[in-house]
Amino acid sequence: MSLTSVNPRNDAVLATIEESTAQELEDALAAAWAAAPLLRAMSAAERGRWIRAVADALDRRSDELVQLAGSETGLPHARLTGEVVRTTTQLRFLAAHAETGQPFEPTIDRSDPSWLPAPRLDLRSIRAGIGVVLVFAASNFPFAFSVAGGDTASAWAAGCPVIVKTHPGHPLLSEAVAETIRGTLAAQCVPPGAFAVIRGFDVGRTALTDRRVSAGAFTGSLAGGRALVDIASRRHNPIPFFAEMGSINPVVVTAHASRERPEQIAAGLADSFLLGSGQLCTKPGLILIPSGSGIAERITALTAESPAGVMLNRAIRDRHRSALREFLSHSEIGLVAVGQQAPDDHGAFEAPTVTSTTAKALIADPDTITEEHFGPSTVLVTYESETELQAAIQTLPGTLTGTVHCGSGEDVTGLVAMLAERAGRVLVNDWPTGVAVTWAQFHGGPYPSTSDARHTSVGAGAIGRFLRTVAYQNVPDSALPPWLRNANPDRILRRMDGVLTDEPISEGP
Amino acid sequence: MSLTSVNPRNDAVLATIEESTAQELEDALAAAWAAAPLLRAMSAAERGRWIRAVADALDRRSDELVQLAGSETGLPHARLTGEVVRTTTQLRFLAAHAETGQPFEPTIDRSDPSWLPAPRLDLRSIRAGIGVVLVFAASNFPFAFSVAGGDTASAWAAGCPVIVKTHPGHPLLSEAVAETIRGTLAAQCVPPGAFAVIRGFDVGRTALTDRRVSAGAFTGSLAGGRALVDIASRRHNPIPFFAEMGSINPVVVTAHASRERPEQIAAGLADSFLLGSGQLCTKPGLILIPSGSGIAERITALTAESPAGVMLNRAIRDRHRSALREFLSHSEIGLVAVGQQAPDDHGAFEAPTVTSTTAKALIADPDTITEEHFGPSTVLVTYESETELQAAIQTLPGTLTGTVHCGSGEDVTGLVAMLAERAGRVLVNDWPTGVAVTWAQFHGGPYPSTSDARHTSVGAGAIGRFLRTVAYQNVPDSALPPWLRNANPDRILRRMDGVLTDEPISEGP
Repeated sequence: MSLTSVNPRNDAVLATIEESTAQELEDALAAAWAAAPLLRAMSAAERGRWIRAVADALDRRSDELVQLAGSETGLPHARLTGEVVRTTTQLRFLAAHAETGQPFEPTIDRSDPSWLPAPRLDLRSIRAGIGVVLVFAASNFPFAFSVAGGDTASAWAAGCPVIVKTHPGHPLLSEAVAETIRGTLAAQCVPPGAFAVIRGFDVGRTALTDRRVSAGAFTGSLAGGRALVDIASRRHNPIPFFAEMGSINPVVVTAHASRERPEQIAAGLADSFLLGSGQLCTKPGLILIPSGSGIAERITALTAESPAGVMLNRAIRDRHRSALREFLSHSEIGLVAVGQQAPDDHGAFEAPTVTSTTAKALIADPDTITEEHFGPSTVLVTYESETELQAAIQTLPGTLTGTVHCGSGEDVTGLVAMLAERAGRVLVNDWPTGVAVTWAQFHGGPYPSTSDARHTSVGAGAIGRFLRTVAYQNVPDSALPPWLRNANPDRILRRMDGVLTDEPISEGP
Repeated sequence: MSLTSVNPRNDAVLATIEESTAQELEDALAAAWAAAPLLRAMSAAERGRWIRAVADALDRRSDELVQLAGSETGLPHARLTGEVVRTTTQLRFLAAHAETGQPFEPTIDRSDPSWLPAPRLDLRSIRAGIGVVLVFAASNFPFAFSVAGGDTASAWAAGCPVIVKTHPGHPLLSEAVAETIRGTLAAQCVPPGAFAVIRGFDVGRTALTDRRVSAGAFTGSLAGGRALVDIASRRHNPIPFFAEMGSINPVVVTAHASRERPEQIAAGLADSFLLGSGQLCTKPGLILIPSGSGIAERITALTAESPAGVMLNRAIRDRHRSALREFLSHSEIGLVAVGQQAPDDHGAFEAPTVTSTTAKALIADPDTITEEHFGPSTVLVTYESETELQAAIQTLPGTLTGTVHCGSGEDVTGLVAMLAERAGRVLVNDWPTGVAVTWAQFHGGPYPSTSDARHTSVGAGAIGRFLRTVAYQNVPDSALPPWLRNANPDRILRRMDGVLTDEPISEGP
């Protein structure tokens, strides 16, 4: 089997690339398995050194990589340039966070003869890399959620070897990034099993069933993610698998907000749902607006003058188009606005589209109306009263984000709490697209937005997905992992008898 | 359907109790669902108040409850009295740990116009209760892993309502503990949905498929745990389900140790594998000893003079007996010692039994030889060389604990690291039975010892299983969860721009 790289702007075939062979997969698994204990035993500072070297190498090659990414994905140059910065910043951020020791939660309970119900001996615990992590790359962020993206960065920072199943949408870029990584790791004398790429749908599925793989991560569609989650959970030994599967990202516009700044809200929404041709996990896909607010008319005008956008490929474009056709066949859903028509005869272009319905219809048929449409479209849902708004929110499925636009001084406590029940991130007077890589970031949410609402794939917390704890009872100091030993030369914070401290310990077990 | 409570010492029928009806289950689910947002919004101090009241009420009723537990489980009075202390200490410990705020990981990133690749607005995140937790109680710890056990305590501390599917082995005790809890919660004006018990195998399975249940926990057998894990992962919306399924808990005795203190090791092993008639998840079930060490002879002598112990019930006793018979049919496995014979005509008594084999046989057929036998038996595995010992360790499955007994001054770094690859807790010169409830404790491990190696069911970390994060972007101070607001009157530690601090914030979002 082979993969074909196509320029979505003009259908030009850029290359044909073979899928990985069974032997290539076996080599990758064997090398990764061998590297797992080595990476786990490496200090975070040592891992940080080569993770930063990878970031630096990608930055140096940015122009060339952006060029390649643009030809394979159709995404604009400025966006891709920013995405490289985001990706390399993310590598450095996660490496630095790991170096603080905090993701590993070093914990020390000194022996205590008065402990209840029985005296206890010295007990210390620390998290360490879970083993080989299999990453399924996404199509829509060819850098930040692909070969050197957040899943790879957090697995490395955790001390895990990574095998990336590349996305067929950008095979040339994937190979170029992989080559950069391999070259850097070799120059840094990192065990070669720390990283590999594999190509092919079936190859990825086979890898996921291999006993040497200890965890997995995915960003993509609900159908694709769920299929992989099911494989991971049905193995002889189930493994943690984190799938981020996109969502509807509801936005609530209060009556107060719609009176106060209708133009600003309409413009912000248009910018947000059209960003990246609507191919973002955090695209606002459903907007609850007060009936008669005038916002719909403003969005209509903005959408009508918007150009058709190029999508990642024709298959994604065609799925969006047929899903919208099906959606519009619903008796309670109407077409509000269509942007400039896309040329049908070449490229993967798609016209911006806005549809509308009522909160009543949403409440009556939430499954249809809250389905995610991956592409440049959104649905306006008009509500007649606050009661109806609240009932509508109650029907919403799990989602990555939930947003409130409110008026100045308006109390949004209730709306924020309602959205927090079903979202992983709640925003006020902002837009959900754009996910900063920070300590507090949480890019996750209740099903179906992810497969496990407890985890994030972006931000400092992403590292924790790939760590498991080992406790050490009465173990001699010299046989403990370095960060659990009495001396604490790195002065990392450790929880000692329940209290965080960077102090060393004078007596040991 | 009904459950029968039987005294395992004399087969006396103590009571017959009906399983929960469909209506009772529906009532429990509806009440728990309604209570979830209330418990989540409650402060940790407020939850701590009633969790401690439950602990106090159980302590007050301890004598009566221990009496009941003894009659239903056959466990000795002193052990059960200690287990009540452990259980109530655990309730108070987890409540107090929640009150520090640390399990909720409050994190604040203030807005930063210089952030890369783009300026960011104020972003704050905190974990909160995931929703209704369904707990499947265990048979072997009728207090500490049952109705008011560690799963209930950690779910409550996380802010989650709990529904306990009681274990049929101690239905009278389960009802007495439940009654104590209900009475206390009512007196403390806690929403009644914070706690319920349900009875019956099918009732529990049905509950696990209900959309109102957000997470689950189980302690028991591999077959039982895996069946529930599979139900949880095959739901329309998969939910986190943590199953602790016991393990083989290997012990390695080095040549040095066996020369230095053979009597002490033999005595320690006999005490540990016979504790609670061997019905502990952490029972040392496989002991690697150097050939010709003399330890086997000492254990034989100790075992031969040990009395038959009463097991939890005849079914468990019969399973142990037939599993041992099957085990001994293996050509490479021999019978080393049998303790005083059990009466066959009444009660669930079982004789202590020690079997033996060689490291060669273990390496040749690890699946058979590493199978857990829940009861008063263990297998001695003799090794001929360090190389053979290491090869034997490589065959061991995931396990809750791994233990090394070494000589004074002996370097055990390599053995500790090898055991840490497959265990959740590694001990040196101690025994794995007895699991202290502390900050560093980790009661978990790679499959098949648990369904997710990342989690523990004992210790401070147990709370995290039942929490999910929500991030708040640009949300007004007054609409934030209290611990994320600028003022920090409780002076809890928060990660602010990456650094832990208990300082309040002067300017807000």
